[in-house]
Amino acid sequence: MSENSAPQFHSDVTVELVRASAEDADVIFAARVSTQGEQSLEADKMEGTKTEQDQKRDRGLINYLMRDRHGSPFEHNSMTFYVQAPIFVFREFMRHRIASYNEESGRYRELNPVFYVPNSSRNLIQTGKPGAYEFHPGTAEQTALVDQQTRDVSMHAYEAYQRMLEAGIAREVARIVLPLTIYSSMYVTMNARSLMNFLSLRTKREGSHFPSFPQREIEMCAEKMEDHFARLMPLTYEAFNLNGRIAP
Amino acid sequence: MSENSAPQFHSDVTVELVRASAEDADVIFAARVSTQGEQSLEADKMEGTKTEQDQKRDRGLINYLMRDRHGSPFEHNSMTFYVQAPIFVFREFMRHRIASYNEESGRYRELNPVFYVPNSSRNLIQTGKPGAYEFHPGTAEQTALVDQQTRDVSMHAYEAYQRMLEAGIAREVARIVLPLTIYSSMYVTMNARSLMNFLSLRTKREGSHFPSFPQREIEMCAEKMEDHFARLMPLTYEAFNLNGRIAP
Amino acid sequence: MSENSAPQFHSDVTVELVRASAEDADVIFAARVSTQGEQSLEADKMEGTKTEQDQKRDRGLINYLMRDRHGSPFEHNSMTFYVQAPIFVFREFMRHRIASYNEESGRYRELNPVFYVPNSSRNLIQTGKPGAYEFHPGTAEQTALVDQQTRDVSMHAYEAYQRMLEAGIAREVARIVLPLTIYSSMYVTMNARSLMNFLSLRTKREGSHFPSFPQREIEMCAEKMEDHFARLMPLTYEAFNLNGRIAP
Amino acid sequence: MSENSAPQFHSDVTVELVRASAEDADVIFAARVSTQGEQSLEADKMEGTKTEQDQKRDRGLINYLMRDRHGSPFEHNSMTFYVQAPIFVFREFMRHRIASYNEESGRYRELNPVFYVPNSSRNLIQTGKPGAYEFHPGTAEQTALVDQQTRDVSMHAYEAYQRMLEAGIAREVARIVLPLTIYSSMYVTMNARSLMNFLSLRTKREGSHFPSFPQREIEMCAEKMEDHFARLMPLTYEAFNLNGRIAP
Repeated sequence: MSENSAPQFHSDVTVELVRASAEDADVIFAARVSTQGEQSLEADKMEGTKTEQDQKRDRGLINYLMRDRHGSPFEHNSMTFYVQAPIFVFREFMRHRIASYNEESGRYRELNPVFYVPNSSRNLIQTGKPGAYEFHPGTAEQTALVDQQTRDVSMHAYEAYQRMLEAGIAREVARIVLPLTIYSSMYVTMNARSLMNFLSLRTKREGSHFPSFPQREIEMCAEKMEDHFARLMPLTYEAFNLNGRIAP
Repeated sequence: MSENSAPQFHSDVTVELVRASAEDADVIFAARVSTQGEQSLEADKMEGTKTEQDQKRDRGLINYLMRDRHGSPFEHNSMTFYVQAPIFVFREFMRHRIASYNEESGRYRELNPVFYVPNSSRNLIQTGKPGAYEFHPGTAEQTALVDQQTRDVSMHAYEAYQRMLEAGIAREVARIVLPLTIYSSMYVTMNARSLMNFLSLRTKREGSHFPSFPQREIEMCAEKMEDHFARLMPLTYEAFNLNGRIAP
Repeated sequence: MSENSAPQFHSDVTVELVRASAEDADVIFAARVSTQGEQSLEADKMEGTKTEQDQKRDRGLINYLMRDRHGSPFEHNSMTFYVQAPIFVFREFMRHRIASYNEESGRYRELNPVFYVPNSSRNLIQTGKPGAYEFHPGTAEQTALVDQQTRDVSMHAYEAYQRMLEAGIAREVARIVLPLTIYSSMYVTMNARSLMNFLSLRTKREGSHFPSFPQREIEMCAEKMEDHFARLMPLTYEAFNLNGRIAP
Repeated sequence: MSENSAPQFHSDVTVELVRASAEDADVIFAARVSTQGEQSLEADKMEGTKTEQDQKRDRGLINYLMRDRHGSPFEHNSMTFYVQAPIFVFREFMRHRIASYNEESGRYRELNPVFYVPNSSRNLIQTGKPGAYEFHPGTAEQTALVDQQTRDVSMHAYEAYQRMLEAGIAREVARIVLPLTIYSSMYVTMNARSLMNFLSLRTKREGSHFPSFPQREIEMCAEKMEDHFARLMPLTYEAFNLNGRIAP
């Protein structure tokens, strides 16, 4: 067995911002081209430190763009995240087509035995109808069952994976027995418009015009991405929340 | 346990064409708008049965569009496939962003115990460097090992899944222990241009300008889709092959 | 001069539905795959004539999908329109990226002298601030001025175009003097989800959650497309209107 | 008349790189995630100055990705250009759907009288069949005719535009008489993969696998964008040229 083979279990996801060229000013300049010539733009750049009035004007413009759904000014920027999460999260993530993905490949490398296991804060019980599920904590017994079954299946499957690799089976074949709990990693690049669409569907934070019922684990990714977004583009983020968390 | 719980193992994939509005004539009319007025189009429709000369002209036009990479005339058509394949195939499939997907959901329904197991025709041994892997048959022992491990892990995981469901655990939680061998089903809709791009990357048929090294199982899907495409749009398919199997 | 050269002036746009594979049932089957196995789908197809209860269930499902913004089931369908409109409309139209376009080309053929001129029902006066413009009828004098200037410039420019063609200048060069009033024609293919997005931005019909301020001439196209859509997919159209005319 | 109203005529286009987050290293890190864990990536970053061997390895990896059409690693980067060109160029430009656009709006501001006129280096005569046109210089008389007609029509149309604005006609109506020669400006954002696709179709430089026949004026834009790209991502650009100038 490889030196990596001692199984690890985690209950969280990792999101790092590895590259960003994204600020509120990128929205402003793109929007201004509609209404001004280049000279004004140059003047705007030369202004130096922004006055309070400038900021108020910028906030107003961004809020107006969001409200009237002028979406394209929110596209001239770019954020790249490094995400580590179990495969069942990536399955949902990659349904979002306005993004760029590169994921670790089980065809090119041997996968590490790192698995997701729900911890005690994960609601385990579901009530209600499709489209309006509610989730509640499990009992101590239920929590213990999920923990034990998840660990057991993950280790059992990984042993089979190792056994096949040792017998000379191709990685792309051996990996098919691995469970959806196994962690993978990827780079994902999005612009702010696409990210707001992602957040509108993959979080259920308050203030949203439309209900969303994301699975908790992808919401954990979305919340971490949202924190980076809020810090990089505070006025855009504020306008997103003010306008019902609907992407323009 | 539910009545569906007797595990089944399959070694193939299913592709049904459930809806198609796609023929070579759709390429012709879209291309002709560039060079003709509507009257010519109307005249073309009124022509009735096509002469041999018409067909030669159509073949020539489609071949010219493909060769010079005029891609847009190949987009005014639509094919919907119903695909049943293991989840590890869907993971690769959904990386193709110019398509529409709806997949069976383990959040809304209990999944059936239907699993993929490689059969004896599946090459199990990989040689060569990344980007130029070659695959060869395994020995009888290797084949038996893969068969036995895949069945064992799949059944073991499904039992854990059932055990959690019976204990009242939410479907979206219990399903995380299932292996990548489990079958899922989806509808996928593409136009001919997008489908040709898919085929160029997910088959390694002869005549391709650029090498591709698809995993065999997604290639099995691609080949079945290709058969439908070849039948629906024979001139387009012929031009695709004549021009190095590169999507325009 | 060519036989086509007598200038024509029109004040309307043409939208023909030339190809459609789009009905409410396409939404239903795509959504059902999430929750049912294929057998149920087959059973659904075999049902024959739908009962009143079936229709109520279908209407409820489509409304639920729209409300909760499950957008992908609205993508497995396809509509192709033949549109004739002035170039300034096509400039706005082609900003919509989730669609397929093939337009008449001034590089490949000599363009006909067919021009748009606003008629008396076109509001000519604009008041209010950007983002909240209101439009009002012009005076008789203003109306006459617009009519006269538009005809004059269009004919003047077309004469220059003809003069250059006659002198042997390439079509792609001569055409650059033509005005934005000249009509062009194109095929455009969209699915219902993309079309609803288009309608939400290019009409200002009542009941919309968000304001839109489309230029009247593209709205004329949008309204004709909307009529086709309403007829092809009545339940989807109803749900679109019930849910604030926001695409899912 | 406004102070901007003295007509100007230009024969070139402007392309400024206003924002870029795009280097060869962005391709490398995205590709490495497939084959390495994060630790290796971290180690790679810590390496400090790259040795000659590192550079050779990077060049080899990028060339391999291009050759085998692994396209996604070329998407984790972003370039924003400010482009000034006549409207007939923008009409072609915006057919490229994998890009973000914000253009100056004739609805929100009065347009300046800046017009394109072909200069003496612009080939005016076209020979050959569609798909294989060749262009040749015009005679002195032809050149003079094009120059004179273009200037005349542009000024005539702009006067009508001014006349309508002065009479109180809405900008969005008055502008419809303007010719395709009028300059507009826009911001366009693309990633390297999309830009390579654009270049493959809008330049006819040597070494291309497939022929392209772009109109000269959009090719002028493309060539300026290509210069920026070559400087920002030299290894990627080299691999693009080595592999037939086909986007992966």
